[in-house]
Amino acid sequence: MNQKGFQDYYPDELSYCYGCGWRNEEGLKLKSYWDGEETVAIFKPRSYHIAIPGYVYGGLIASIIDCHSTGTAAAATYRAEGREMGTEPLLRFVTASLHVEYIRPAPLGVTLEVRGKVKEIKGRKVVVSATVSAGGEIYAKGEVVAVKMPEHMMPRKEGI
Amino acid sequence: MNQKGFQDYYPDELSYCYGCGWRNEEGLKLKSYWDGEETVAIFKPRSYHIAIPGYVYGGLIASIIDCHSTGTAAAATYRAEGREMGTEPLLRFVTASLHVEYIRPAPLGVTLEVRGKVKEIKGRKVVVSATVSAGGEIYAKGEVVAVKMPEHMMPRKEGI
Repeated sequence: MNQKGFQDYYPDELSYCYGCGWRNEEGLKLKSYWDGEETVAIFKPRSYHIAIPGYVYGGLIASIIDCHSTGTAAAATYRAEGREMGTEPLLRFVTASLHVEYIRPAPLGVTLEVRGKVKEIKGRKVVVSATVSAGGEIYAKGEVVAVKMPEHMMPRKEGI
Repeated sequence: MNQKGFQDYYPDELSYCYGCGWRNEEGLKLKSYWDGEETVAIFKPRSYHIAIPGYVYGGLIASIIDCHSTGTAAAATYRAEGREMGTEPLLRFVTASLHVEYIRPAPLGVTLEVRGKVKEIKGRKVVVSATVSAGGEIYAKGEVVAVKMPEHMMPRKEGI
């Protein structure tokens, strides 16, 4: 997928996130996209993202659910407001709560698919449910409550 | 703290965890200890464990809660059985579910304290609640349901 991910529309000053910021050299650089009414991101864990030998670290799974869900929250809010992503006022969501159920261990060496669905948009809050799977097998389910970052924490565009 | 952490008693073959395995060169190498009836781990996030500038990545906070809680589950089960850590049969717990509430953003550059409490031990399952704080200020609260790793996944000691 060569189109821009949700995270590419975050303000540059807020693009250092370890999970999904393009400016974080050490980070995971997760990118999320629309797929109809759902959202999707693909990620191949690195060899050191290990829990017990052969399986993916649960904290990594929590991390990709987290970043995919806050990205989904921003994209869904732009869509609900009838706006193109990246238009002003800029939107960036942070995580209020994260819940992950680990269904079965995810094997290392496999490319994982994170899929998100918006459950609710209410005021500044968006609830996103997510799955992490490969080849139709679901390894984890998650739910994230994302909240819009307060305006005073958002960077201003030059000249404004 | 120079004494052995809970994770130092894990079987060597299961000590590759990104969050707490001493054999994972890239990992966080979290170590957990008893402090009376509670458990504690300290961790200073690295400069790239960033969410938005100045604050710690939420996935990192979820990760240290996860590893501290599964370690706490093992230590508490040894204690409940009146056994020294590392005695046979070896105990290693994995995460069934992880829940994190992000109370306020944790500043980067600060050493975080993860504290755990055992809420319940029932059969193969241990429920652990945790906080992540610094200087008495709580940044996140978590709850982990940890389950004992099935015997067939545990390594055997040589000669057994």
